[in-house]
Amino acid sequence: MENLQMSLLARADHGDGTSSAVGPERLSTLFRPRSVALVGATDRSNFSKVAYQNLAAFGFAERTYLVNRRGAETHGRSTVPSCSAIGEPVDVAYLMVSQAAMLDALSDAAQAGIRNAVVLSSGYAEAGPDGRAAQLALVEHARSLGMVLLGPNHLGFANFVDRTPVCSVRVTPRSPGPVALLSQSGASVGAMVKFADMTGTGLSYMITLGNEAMITAASALQYLVEDEHTRAIAIFLETIRDPQLFARAARQAAQAGKPVIVLKAGRSELSARTAAAHTGALVGDDNVISAVFTALGVVRVDSIEDLMVTAGLGAHLGPVARPGIGVVSVSGGACGILADTAAAAGAVLPEFGERTRAALRELLPPFATPQNPLDVTGAATIEPALFRDAITIVSGDPEVGVMAVVNTMPWVSDGGRWHGQATANAVGEGIARSEVPVIYVNQTMQPLSGYTREVMAEAGIPYLVTGLRHAMVGLAKISAWSQAVGRLRDEQGDVAPLVVSAAGTRRGTWSEEAGRQLLAEAGIPVVPGRMVSSGDDAVAACGELGGSIALKIVSAGVAHKSDVGGVRLGVAAADAGRVYQELRDLGGQLDATLDGVLATSMTTAGLELLVGVVRDPEWGLMLALGVGGVFTEVFKDFALAPLPVSSAQAARMLRSLRAAPVLDGVRGGPAVDLPGLARVIERVGLLAAELGPGLTALEINPLWVSGSRIEALDVLVSWSGHE
Amino acid sequence: MENLQMSLLARADHGDGTSSAVGPERLSTLFRPRSVALVGATDRSNFSKVAYQNLAAFGFAERTYLVNRRGAETHGRSTVPSCSAIGEPVDVAYLMVSQAAMLDALSDAAQAGIRNAVVLSSGYAEAGPDGRAAQLALVEHARSLGMVLLGPNHLGFANFVDRTPVCSVRVTPRSPGPVALLSQSGASVGAMVKFADMTGTGLSYMITLGNEAMITAASALQYLVEDEHTRAIAIFLETIRDPQLFARAARQAAQAGKPVIVLKAGRSELSARTAAAHTGALVGDDNVISAVFTALGVVRVDSIEDLMVTAGLGAHLGPVARPGIGVVSVSGGACGILADTAAAAGAVLPEFGERTRAALRELLPPFATPQNPLDVTGAATIEPALFRDAITIVSGDPEVGVMAVVNTMPWVSDGGRWHGQATANAVGEGIARSEVPVIYVNQTMQPLSGYTREVMAEAGIPYLVTGLRHAMVGLAKISAWSQAVGRLRDEQGDVAPLVVSAAGTRRGTWSEEAGRQLLAEAGIPVVPGRMVSSGDDAVAACGELGGSIALKIVSAGVAHKSDVGGVRLGVAAADAGRVYQELRDLGGQLDATLDGVLATSMTTAGLELLVGVVRDPEWGLMLALGVGGVFTEVFKDFALAPLPVSSAQAARMLRSLRAAPVLDGVRGGPAVDLPGLARVIERVGLLAAELGPGLTALEINPLWVSGSRIEALDVLVSWSGHE
Repeated sequence: MENLQMSLLARADHGDGTSSAVGPERLSTLFRPRSVALVGATDRSNFSKVAYQNLAAFGFAERTYLVNRRGAETHGRSTVPSCSAIGEPVDVAYLMVSQAAMLDALSDAAQAGIRNAVVLSSGYAEAGPDGRAAQLALVEHARSLGMVLLGPNHLGFANFVDRTPVCSVRVTPRSPGPVALLSQSGASVGAMVKFADMTGTGLSYMITLGNEAMITAASALQYLVEDEHTRAIAIFLETIRDPQLFARAARQAAQAGKPVIVLKAGRSELSARTAAAHTGALVGDDNVISAVFTALGVVRVDSIEDLMVTAGLGAHLGPVARPGIGVVSVSGGACGILADTAAAAGAVLPEFGERTRAALRELLPPFATPQNPLDVTGAATIEPALFRDAITIVSGDPEVGVMAVVNTMPWVSDGGRWHGQATANAVGEGIARSEVPVIYVNQTMQPLSGYTREVMAEAGIPYLVTGLRHAMVGLAKISAWSQAVGRLRDEQGDVAPLVVSAAGTRRGTWSEEAGRQLLAEAGIPVVPGRMVSSGDDAVAACGELGGSIALKIVSAGVAHKSDVGGVRLGVAAADAGRVYQELRDLGGQLDATLDGVLATSMTTAGLELLVGVVRDPEWGLMLALGVGGVFTEVFKDFALAPLPVSSAQAARMLRSLRAAPVLDGVRGGPAVDLPGLARVIERVGLLAAELGPGLTALEINPLWVSGSRIEALDVLVSWSGHE
Repeated sequence: MENLQMSLLARADHGDGTSSAVGPERLSTLFRPRSVALVGATDRSNFSKVAYQNLAAFGFAERTYLVNRRGAETHGRSTVPSCSAIGEPVDVAYLMVSQAAMLDALSDAAQAGIRNAVVLSSGYAEAGPDGRAAQLALVEHARSLGMVLLGPNHLGFANFVDRTPVCSVRVTPRSPGPVALLSQSGASVGAMVKFADMTGTGLSYMITLGNEAMITAASALQYLVEDEHTRAIAIFLETIRDPQLFARAARQAAQAGKPVIVLKAGRSELSARTAAAHTGALVGDDNVISAVFTALGVVRVDSIEDLMVTAGLGAHLGPVARPGIGVVSVSGGACGILADTAAAAGAVLPEFGERTRAALRELLPPFATPQNPLDVTGAATIEPALFRDAITIVSGDPEVGVMAVVNTMPWVSDGGRWHGQATANAVGEGIARSEVPVIYVNQTMQPLSGYTREVMAEAGIPYLVTGLRHAMVGLAKISAWSQAVGRLRDEQGDVAPLVVSAAGTRRGTWSEEAGRQLLAEAGIPVVPGRMVSSGDDAVAACGELGGSIALKIVSAGVAHKSDVGGVRLGVAAADAGRVYQELRDLGGQLDATLDGVLATSMTTAGLELLVGVVRDPEWGLMLALGVGGVFTEVFKDFALAPLPVSSAQAARMLRSLRAAPVLDGVRGGPAVDLPGLARVIERVGLLAAELGPGLTALEINPLWVSGSRIEALDVLVSWSGHE
């Protein structure tokens, strides 16, 4: 049975051999070392200094060996001239030597029994053709030695669970936490760790990936999904080097209930692909990534702050049972901003049920409004129990799956017990009695300090997010992720396979008539029509097809018939003979062979959709749909997903269009039969998947819909290779 | 001459008399008091405690008098039983007494010569009809005593310039700064001040407004525009009580080069108005506010963080000369996110000119790319002068008006001189040599601590924003504001007035024929056509108007002719007589009087626009335009602005549409004559403005455009009052 994972894994690996997967078990000897050798250690290098300072600060100095070619005292310690001279078992060699000395250093490490290398040095694949050659040689050498290497061109990693920082990013000792941080950028990871520290986002691992010569983000992700201390993974990506493995790892994360949050640069570079089909122009790299992330349940964010806040929230909450967020606040002003912020972030703030509202009416002063977000009013500052009880009541609402309590929280001591402690304690009591998880939200972003921890500990507040916007974005994302993960489990295997014979040479662009037959065989409705063989036959077709008809040239070599004048609409019987002859004459003037002339019924008013499948070189077949014409062309209003697309998902995609209201009927027209349309779209996807790896595009444009009548008016099928 | 200010001020004041303007001079005795009486001071009230603690902390205790009815010792000080008993001149009475005691307390204060009251107490207009009555009585009493009052239902104000906190919001002594903070919410202002403190945003004033019974946000804004210490004003608004004065104050701020930044709740409540014209449904309250803000050069933001960061930036920068932002960073990863963030924030990052690129190529390593945002590469960490020189080069680019340098900045000491100080110093040197203002940006949001200030002072870095997103939003907003302020100055008076006779009864809805005459008189092109008086006349019209024509009923009582079957398109000469009769017969069945039948030319393929003017009850005539049909209906794609709208502004509005690409021609059609179209739109606005206060809507739907041919196909003119 076809499913997304299979589909994504079925395609050929276009890798250059430098990124084959390294399994989690093998990685644990790298990421959980019992001892480390700093190779190329020298007082002159800042990288060396920082790496040693980190190890020393975490109490790992005794298990750290410094290797200096000349054996000179370094960082106040004695050194050895080579790994072989250490004479003790070592798990990881941290290599800071020059590119020229690298292969020998690897050999030396291997000879000392070291099986893992962390290669800081740059000048490899990131630095042009020579660098790429050097990187291939590096990987080949490591493989020949049975070694695994992280990098090159990065800043190492830190395992905070085992207190093992093997990195040249400054880190300070801390309690480990549930968030693992993966980054392809070394220069930005320092900012991410600093921000995690400020907001009290506990880290399990920090791993910089660099050029990913052997260990890709996907490999590291797999390792972290299996790591028991990690409950969410935050990733900063510039490119995905191993789409198949990344997809597999992401699905494993979803199955494990561990959210993967990605900040990926390149959103604004909407580089559209050139492709035969119209769909191709819609499908930019970044749109494909977003669609694939959605299908995999991977959460995408836009800033470092949202990356860390959302990962922290996800690790704390795990999947939530219901998407609705209940919000309780002591500030009416905050509620107004909250409603706007929630709407902008896509957070679902359900209306409270009647029982909830009745209970709140009984609890709160008469001037309070029992709505979501709830303003408990200033009365709660005088009587904190109102806050406590409002939380309990809202937590019992049938639509609420998680709650946010918006209030103030200090980070700088005002010289004693916090003046707002009584209110915070009441919130804590409310949280203790709540039926759903509750997040405490400070209105603006600020540090989570030691003083903050004291206040939270006394009040019994388990989790704090600072900043309304960050809290709403994080809750909205984790809420949507929870739904997506649920669907990934429920809908897997929903799509039955489809078998078609697809007679015809699978090369170049097929004629429309061949495409029509293919659709018909797959059970996709096509507009009534037939090939006509003469002027008289065209006149006869008018009678059969009901009055005026469309006449079009049929030619495998002409993808865009309208552009060459090969489509004539609304041809009446009186004109059919003449028009037929004109099209035959036109055929004589074309470069391509004319296969004949097709007559089809004219459709009446209705909606014209674009439904197309194109092959992305990295992620495989992608299905795009939109309302045709200016909607997709001007507004870029379309939905995109990797195959397979179930009819349930197709319906969601249709509903996600900004043009969705037209599906309910425009200007008095009938509403579209959405389930029927969704089933047709599912079949288009199934057909494309069935047609094998040679298919480059299958596009129905337009797919005409009027109520429950659905007809493909034109179809383009194209294959790799020329006819 | 008509201009926005005039237009906004010309309308009747619908106020209830409780919000007439209090001028800046009068307000200075309130906001710059030499002494303060806390009336109703008691140890049992937290409001009283906080207010006194604030005054004491700022060294104002000696000029503070505590008034306690029973004369009991309060806050460790002796008290007097009434203001009259103080025996010294006092400028402000801070009234914390109950509503029942308020009028007497006011009388007592007045008797003691106090001319300003700050009324904390609640239960006034915010609390229903009784409260509203109490508030009217309060204002009337204050007026009768010659007093001015701030509030009620708020938390006071703090003047940080004169170190005078007259508020029950906890504030700590600080150096005054250039940002004034106005807030209608008392409960959220604490969070705003705390955030300003954290980010080092210096405040001149903090004023909470409450119910604005006498002093509105507009009055306070006027005062702050004239205050020499204030260079930007941040406002949290829930409603604008005094649109006319607000508009005047905002224009004064723009003229003074002081940005006004507004966080206004209610963006998500898109409550559409009911109105006869289609335009009315488009124009929600919030869209009107946004359009008015744009016209006034008021900056709108979405979060407390952006409010304070943008105000701080605006105060520091003032208007920038060019909109382009040059970005220099040491992190390639940050550059990727930066480009995305800038695009999302609408920040203009121009391509560098050839001279800039050549100079950067010479300066930087060969693997660096001389683009904006610029990654100076890791080489700059080893050779900081690269950073310095890159800043200098980029600052000289002809398109760059302001720069952002993205790097790291500490807020927690790492136990000595910061390890990154050398790089920071190089940045400081670059800033000193820069030709444009330069902002230092830390990648993530964090506090500006004493340690941060030390680093900045040594390096000579004048201004820091923490957080890429906040920096890009702030720079984009201040950059756009600078342009808007420039345009407000340049374009004032660009629009010449228009005089039309507009013969006809200005009541109800006019017939289409009357509307057509009105447009024609105003020089707005209408589709050729004439009234026809018989079937034969309709046939004749076919000949005159070129083949098939449109026939429509003309009736003042029918606003939507199509809905009743009163429009027949593409009528050929052979059918014209019959159709004419059918329309006459239809007229007989309508409730409204049929004025006749109108024959007009049929237009060919072209673009159909909607151009409408409706009257907003608060802000006056608003012009809306969009591409007709589903574009405006489904995508809500329209532009909105208060009148007057110059042709230059109309062209900008057209370009701002998401549908703007269709103006350049779709599917082989001609490009629209944009200047010509913009002139027609300007005339529509002028005509509406000329038609006087009775006009409720003037809508051309559609306005047909094909290349430089522009014709109003249908027009609706409606007036207040029924025919």
